[in-house]
Amino acid sequence: MKAATELRLAILGAGGLGKGMMQRVEQTPGFKTVALVDSTGYVWDEDGVDCAALLPLKSLNSYPNAIGSHQAILDLFTVHADDIDVVFVALPNLPVDFIPSIAEQLAEKTTFKGVIVDALKRSRAVELMLALHDVLAQNHILYITGAGATPGFLSTVAAVAAQSFVSVDHIDIRFGVGIANWEAYRATIREDFIHLPGFDADRVAAMSDADIEAELNQRNGLIELVNMEHADDIMLERAGICRRDQVTVGGLVDTRNAAKPIQTTVTITGKTVAGQTASHVLTLDNATTMVDNVCGPALGFLRQGVELHHTQALSGVLTSVDLMPKGHVTTSTAPNRQTVSA
Amino acid sequence: MKAATELRLAILGAGGLGKGMMQRVEQTPGFKTVALVDSTGYVWDEDGVDCAALLPLKSLNSYPNAIGSHQAILDLFTVHADDIDVVFVALPNLPVDFIPSIAEQLAEKTTFKGVIVDALKRSRAVELMLALHDVLAQNHILYITGAGATPGFLSTVAAVAAQSFVSVDHIDIRFGVGIANWEAYRATIREDFIHLPGFDADRVAAMSDADIEAELNQRNGLIELVNMEHADDIMLERAGICRRDQVTVGGLVDTRNAAKPIQTTVTITGKTVAGQTASHVLTLDNATTMVDNVCGPALGFLRQGVELHHTQALSGVLTSVDLMPKGHVTTSTAPNRQTVSA
Repeated sequence: MKAATELRLAILGAGGLGKGMMQRVEQTPGFKTVALVDSTGYVWDEDGVDCAALLPLKSLNSYPNAIGSHQAILDLFTVHADDIDVVFVALPNLPVDFIPSIAEQLAEKTTFKGVIVDALKRSRAVELMLALHDVLAQNHILYITGAGATPGFLSTVAAVAAQSFVSVDHIDIRFGVGIANWEAYRATIREDFIHLPGFDADRVAAMSDADIEAELNQRNGLIELVNMEHADDIMLERAGICRRDQVTVGGLVDTRNAAKPIQTTVTITGKTVAGQTASHVLTLDNATTMVDNVCGPALGFLRQGVELHHTQALSGVLTSVDLMPKGHVTTSTAPNRQTVSA
Repeated sequence: MKAATELRLAILGAGGLGKGMMQRVEQTPGFKTVALVDSTGYVWDEDGVDCAALLPLKSLNSYPNAIGSHQAILDLFTVHADDIDVVFVALPNLPVDFIPSIAEQLAEKTTFKGVIVDALKRSRAVELMLALHDVLAQNHILYITGAGATPGFLSTVAAVAAQSFVSVDHIDIRFGVGIANWEAYRATIREDFIHLPGFDADRVAAMSDADIEAELNQRNGLIELVNMEHADDIMLERAGICRRDQVTVGGLVDTRNAAKPIQTTVTITGKTVAGQTASHVLTLDNATTMVDNVCGPALGFLRQGVELHHTQALSGVLTSVDLMPKGHVTTSTAPNRQTVSA
């Protein structure tokens, strides 16, 4: 058993990302996973859940000590809100207001007063979260949205690296993801499909797993994503780094190989004091997976959030980029990127 | 003239870095340079100093409106402390307690209540700054130390990128610097010499410019720096990212060519959840200079500092890395790196 000063973490979602976080926490001092939730129920253990036993399960209701529920999050927090310090939201976000509605429930219907991070992707979802600032602030919750890899890790590095430039021309995030078996990341893959030509959230929600499988077969397991609606854009704009239309996010996902089809890069291009155009590039190692680059940074943002929450009584909704050095771009009149309806 | 809501910046030091900051500010909304200081005096203009007129000057006392003084910083702040919002310290730091002593003076002998950033390099200097936390906090000054390139920009990116890893093995910062004429960056080059085998702060302080020139001639203008005492180490340790002895800083400085002899890189190596060793790499564009990568980030840290100072009443001494997501490494018993005596 770990030390009593550990942050007690609830993981909302028990898919690839939620289970990945549970594994990550096993290796990370300072945290213990006390709750894991999925659509069938929740598991609670104040001494830390049994990671090895939970990892192989397809759904939590097959676990001996699970509490079955169709409103598992609300039930968990109704009983245990005061025994949870921090929350990682690893839920599929279909429709786009699903996670914002969860956050609102936690604030209004439970006594939870801790720190929450999410790995939300779509700009519209992050905008809905930001609109909840007052509700969460009034209830003394600090919520850091867009705190995964993209947005999150990659957009925060972009915000720092952009400081070199007098003005930013373009921030381009291009990610490679390799997963051996798409079924381990069903929600993530469904989220990716929303960004493909001809798909939207409604259509993807109506597709069966067999339908997804068939689409993947047509693509040899590869999903190429171009000009995605990722919240890196509005987060960087909000922090004054550049206009949202200067941010592009795309990637290549191989759903049949754990090896990444391309390296993940962030390219920050801007003007120097001398007037030259220059680009800084962050390149991630192919050996790092979604779990490393989403869950690791999410824990880092949680640590920082706890410090801000405890020592400075900060609450409300921030994005991960809000925690970085700000830029000087004040325009917020740039055209909204194509927004997927929920 | 710029808008009245601009932050009024005093630049302490009028060498390459100080003048570079003045140029950068000319191109950056949100700031105006109201004061420039060197060892001979200071220039003050509440509407913004005349950058074009000041750039060619070898020392400020040749400027018509300069106030000559041998304690120019204290004189400036005695008269104008309440008309200065933010300060960039671009002074040579010989001996190692020079900049800390300036900060202490500003706190104790003037009414300044704003935000200060520096581009300090040596670990010992940053440690001395951190020891001033209470004095600066009591006087409502927020001081962000190590807020240039290394430490600063590069160490903060390292702190974010390190979040991917369960544990960090090594953070290596390797910089390339190209300057056409070493005399434009005399203080920076002297600081670099301290890190060369056979040199220390006392010896470098005793050297004339001709002595430096002779040493540079012996090296064909190149200074190769290995395992430098750079404060990136203690800053990353303090933030829990890794132990200080896991951080290495080195570089190659060409004092005869504006083109960089090597690209600047930050390599963050650690273990993934799966137990693999992996490295993320940030590569800076060769077209970005010391002015871009020091002064730009320094302004970003100032913006963030002003926000923390104004909205959360934060004061005292922080490092730039303290503003980033924290790590989980709690050891502070790692051996101190070789410390140059002041």
